[in-house]
Amino acid sequence: MCGIFAYLNHLTPKSRREVLEILIQGLQRLEYRGYDSAGVGVDGKDGSIAVFKEKGKVKVLEDAIFSGSNDLDMDEILSTHIGISHTRWATHGVPAPVNAHPQRSDEDQQFICVHNGIITNYKDIKQFLVAKGHRFESETDTEIIAKLTLHIYNDHPNHTFQQIVEMVIQQLEGAFALCFKSKHFPNQCVAARRGSPLLVAIKTKEHLATDHIPIMYSKDDCPGDDTKARKISPTDMRQPPRNVPLIPRSESTAEFLPTGDTQEIEFFLASDASAVIEHTNRVIYLEDDDVAWIRDGMLTIHRLKRASMDESSTREVHTLMMEIQEIMKGSYSSFMQKEIFEQPESVVNTMRGRINFDTETVVLGGIKEFLPEIKRCRRLILIACGTSFHSAIATRQLLEELTELPVMIDLASDFLDRNTPIFRDDVCFFISQSGETADTLMALRYCKTRGALIVGITNTVGSSICRESHCGVHINAGPEIGVASTKAYTSQFISLVMFALVVSEDRLSMRPRRTEIIRGLKQLPELIKEVLKLDSRIEEIAKGLYQNKSMLVMGRGYNYATCLEGALKVKEITYMHSEGILAGELKHGPLALVDPGMPIILICTRDPTFVKCMNALQQVTAREGRPIIICNNGDPEPARFANELLEIPPTVDCLQGILTVIPLQLLSYHVAVMRGCNVDCPRNLAKSVTVE
Amino acid sequence: MCGIFAYLNHLTPKSRREVLEILIQGLQRLEYRGYDSAGVGVDGKDGSIAVFKEKGKVKVLEDAIFSGSNDLDMDEILSTHIGISHTRWATHGVPAPVNAHPQRSDEDQQFICVHNGIITNYKDIKQFLVAKGHRFESETDTEIIAKLTLHIYNDHPNHTFQQIVEMVIQQLEGAFALCFKSKHFPNQCVAARRGSPLLVAIKTKEHLATDHIPIMYSKDDCPGDDTKARKISPTDMRQPPRNVPLIPRSESTAEFLPTGDTQEIEFFLASDASAVIEHTNRVIYLEDDDVAWIRDGMLTIHRLKRASMDESSTREVHTLMMEIQEIMKGSYSSFMQKEIFEQPESVVNTMRGRINFDTETVVLGGIKEFLPEIKRCRRLILIACGTSFHSAIATRQLLEELTELPVMIDLASDFLDRNTPIFRDDVCFFISQSGETADTLMALRYCKTRGALIVGITNTVGSSICRESHCGVHINAGPEIGVASTKAYTSQFISLVMFALVVSEDRLSMRPRRTEIIRGLKQLPELIKEVLKLDSRIEEIAKGLYQNKSMLVMGRGYNYATCLEGALKVKEITYMHSEGILAGELKHGPLALVDPGMPIILICTRDPTFVKCMNALQQVTAREGRPIIICNNGDPEPARFANELLEIPPTVDCLQGILTVIPLQLLSYHVAVMRGCNVDCPRNLAKSVTVE
Repeated sequence: MCGIFAYLNHLTPKSRREVLEILIQGLQRLEYRGYDSAGVGVDGKDGSIAVFKEKGKVKVLEDAIFSGSNDLDMDEILSTHIGISHTRWATHGVPAPVNAHPQRSDEDQQFICVHNGIITNYKDIKQFLVAKGHRFESETDTEIIAKLTLHIYNDHPNHTFQQIVEMVIQQLEGAFALCFKSKHFPNQCVAARRGSPLLVAIKTKEHLATDHIPIMYSKDDCPGDDTKARKISPTDMRQPPRNVPLIPRSESTAEFLPTGDTQEIEFFLASDASAVIEHTNRVIYLEDDDVAWIRDGMLTIHRLKRASMDESSTREVHTLMMEIQEIMKGSYSSFMQKEIFEQPESVVNTMRGRINFDTETVVLGGIKEFLPEIKRCRRLILIACGTSFHSAIATRQLLEELTELPVMIDLASDFLDRNTPIFRDDVCFFISQSGETADTLMALRYCKTRGALIVGITNTVGSSICRESHCGVHINAGPEIGVASTKAYTSQFISLVMFALVVSEDRLSMRPRRTEIIRGLKQLPELIKEVLKLDSRIEEIAKGLYQNKSMLVMGRGYNYATCLEGALKVKEITYMHSEGILAGELKHGPLALVDPGMPIILICTRDPTFVKCMNALQQVTAREGRPIIICNNGDPEPARFANELLEIPPTVDCLQGILTVIPLQLLSYHVAVMRGCNVDCPRNLAKSVTVE
Repeated sequence: MCGIFAYLNHLTPKSRREVLEILIQGLQRLEYRGYDSAGVGVDGKDGSIAVFKEKGKVKVLEDAIFSGSNDLDMDEILSTHIGISHTRWATHGVPAPVNAHPQRSDEDQQFICVHNGIITNYKDIKQFLVAKGHRFESETDTEIIAKLTLHIYNDHPNHTFQQIVEMVIQQLEGAFALCFKSKHFPNQCVAARRGSPLLVAIKTKEHLATDHIPIMYSKDDCPGDDTKARKISPTDMRQPPRNVPLIPRSESTAEFLPTGDTQEIEFFLASDASAVIEHTNRVIYLEDDDVAWIRDGMLTIHRLKRASMDESSTREVHTLMMEIQEIMKGSYSSFMQKEIFEQPESVVNTMRGRINFDTETVVLGGIKEFLPEIKRCRRLILIACGTSFHSAIATRQLLEELTELPVMIDLASDFLDRNTPIFRDDVCFFISQSGETADTLMALRYCKTRGALIVGITNTVGSSICRESHCGVHINAGPEIGVASTKAYTSQFISLVMFALVVSEDRLSMRPRRTEIIRGLKQLPELIKEVLKLDSRIEEIAKGLYQNKSMLVMGRGYNYATCLEGALKVKEITYMHSEGILAGELKHGPLALVDPGMPIILICTRDPTFVKCMNALQQVTAREGRPIIICNNGDPEPARFANELLEIPPTVDCLQGILTVIPLQLLSYHVAVMRGCNVDCPRNLAKSVTVE
């Protein structure tokens, strides 16, 4: 949540209008991360900084900037320039221009910054700054960062921009990705991250001098390497920071100087790759506590200290494999709709190169060498949030069946709240589309320090979960832009199924079951296409439903996860109060809600719980409930009780949930459209939840 | 669910009116088990049977019987007579007189029966009987039992009533408690159970001849005891039953002959003790597959075969300790209200004799001898349904903390659906107020056959879970009549806390924590009284809420269970769609539901998750949500954001959930009253869910 985008053009002249257009376009690509307000900061007149902030979507900001109501010269050519921008998902303070970013250090706007994350100790810092005479104007936690930066600058007027930011972030607790701009350091940009994602993308006509950017450490922590060492004065908020003289910075070769210091080069800083892919495919993923500093066309990466001697001493320049088409809607009306209809292909991509359907074998390269350790473990624990958690519920039974191990599932936030006991012989899975989900990432670190084996299941190469796991599976679903997750869910589901298949590969007694599942996976793309043909039928059903206030989705066994996930989709994008209900719990309370007016969807496919689902169905109809039933093609029994019927092809019991969830994805989509909701940008929500 | 009540007066003359009054009163005591229709069967004119059945509550049936619109002589004195009756909770077929019980064998009503449970193979039997020419009139599963009884009687006209019923139940799959009446066996009653509870109560002026009723086995299974043996012909539905001659029944001393066969005696059969306590306190709890036969003032108990040589060969006559006042409402408007306000006493009863507050020690007699085995186990698994499941969630973290063991929790139905792996070194808890919850009981048996140690946590002495557990804790909350569980929840909570204390008693490092908790428990009754003083304040809040369609209850950590349980209370008795939401999951979907019109209750007490709850609170208010906040007395921080405030006294973090749930119990009560709902008998629900 929250998107950061910055653009630095070094010796590549652009008009102010062009700079602003690039910034706005970058924000629009990041809008799925938050869209309740947005802002941008660029150079103004006479060395000042101009800031524009608006409540609402990026479009509102764009209109305000280009409406002509400001006195900036849009046609002025800026040969070298840094602009920063932000699209917000409110955590502290209501959506309003004053709470939007960039936040500023003072009315003079000496320093401005944009921030993604939550600063947990902002109250203490605010108290300190208020005592020092700083006056606050917003309700945000971010404002303290801008003001603290100015405060430190005033105490250390000879520090470099990078040194000041390094001192600032030492005071911060919580999660952040930050970009700074200052009138004192024109055309320079400093960025830093801890907990929230941030990348630097580079566009240049020439080849880069190196694909590995060396990291520069402070002197104390890097005794053997004096050339790039420097000393940072410790900043204690209770005592004013001491002004310790710095060892002069040498222009060492360790700095990143792509093609010579007078060459044209453009830098982009962004929360994720979709915002930069139209400009360049060369990116560096920053790591926690990295401080990136760009000036004079050069990028340097600084760290205060080396955590361990085996940590990487460089940051690699990656080449993105993403195509710009992947992040475009094409002929669909929304990304979510596109992503629902992509599922016949995305599930193939998840299985590609992993399942050999001829030999009926499965190989997961990402966990191969850890298999012996996994097979020896005492239990599997699957930890996630939201939709990713539902993929854990969906596959838990199969994991229990094929591994014969206890399988626990936990919501990441609850897992952390409980200080759950974790042991060295546990194998912990962390499932997250973005790979940056804050709760999941913190749970990962909690388990890692306790010695458990960490398996990451993500859709984002280079994400934090990806990098901090011992091993893992990329679900390869392709970029998912719609805030409501669809294709990532089915690909997570399949990834966990493949894991279960891999772990049980040498169990002779399970061979028939494994073969059945592998054959089921092979047919899956065709069956998904069949389910997608129900689209117009589902649109009809949505017409009868969309004005309701509430909805219940019921099922059990392998389809329980579908109920939770389907209900979540409806909640997320239609704002209708929908709830997934375990059919077995109906009699313990939820049945009281059933009457002819309550829309009910009941999933009743031919699996071992079919008879029990039919019981639940009869209990519902005995109370005059009029259920919409999702059942297998041509099944007469549930059809007798149906008010509306959605028939889907049968498959192996443990894969059926992939087919039953799709009608609910489509239903939520159509209901949202009919209710006039913004399908890709549901209110109050954002993708990639990088705060706790 | 469903209540059975039968009354047999032997040589104790009663008018027909008195008999019907006793039956109706018995049904009213059982009404919380089901109340969508009711029926009664008594002797009519000229050896016929008269049946009355009505849709609706027992009162409707009572009015119909005594309206004078039938031609029965109400004043006729019946010296010896059997009447059977039933109050229904619909599972198969809508509530309607034709689907109410007693169900009949034919238009002549040669056999009638009442049934609690579900027959899973009723379709097969129905098909068989239809082929044999029987004509069905209802949609129930029960009708096949009545018709099958007649069918077997026709094939075996010389069998006793008991023998016929024994043959019937051999054909049945599923769960049942049954009572039969027949014009062919006047003044006799046969009852049987499997899975659903049933007890026989005895009222006599003289002392009983014995307190242990011996069990009579069929000959094949009891070779050493010819005197009471008999042979039952196997009944195969595919072949007509063979008419194998029976060894004549000897009037053996093993039969129950209380004071001589011409003495006056009254028998009551009932689903639970609350229906009989006003008549007698002497009861026998039948076990699965027992067949009880009463005729000529004698009770005999029969079993087809002995399952193992160490099973009990007698049924004990228990003396109920219950008082009639306990099942009366007193000055309260409903049982639920009474039970909410009883909590300061019921929690004391749960702790009485177990916690010594002077020495700060805890002893649980019911699990004492199993403690060494429990401490050696590999994990604890808590299995339950509905409210009882929430007590497991509420105490999971404390169990994890004090036992340092992995603690899994599972909904019983989902646990069974998943065929969850269970191991010999697992300790499994089964929590159920009634001790008869079908899913929980089946999960218990599943775990028991896999060698796990079984711990029962129930409120009902003599219940199935109680009897089938290796050890356990009686929560001693006293009879709970309101369908929505309240005091049982807080007592389950405390019982599990006491368990955690007992298991950690020899851990020196945990002594301070244990002491803190024990002192917290000591203060609890006083603190509950304080919370109950919020009643009128909560009634005020309910006035602003009761017309809403939806409600969300949010919290995390120790209060997460309170959210789920509070939301369930509201669902159950107000039919408002309420949902408990883990505050940590807010950003992963549910936040989309937040707007100024959605009622939100947020629990935010001073515990380790307080700061995170405040974050959630700010996210809600940033979206213009107007929360009702439950926080600790005088806490200024959450109060700033509150639309309405409910302040409760602080206690130890792990006990706070007992205090936070009470305002929600009261809120659901007041909202239900304002919406005109029947608080004790919510629609569609029933207490003691004895069907899957």
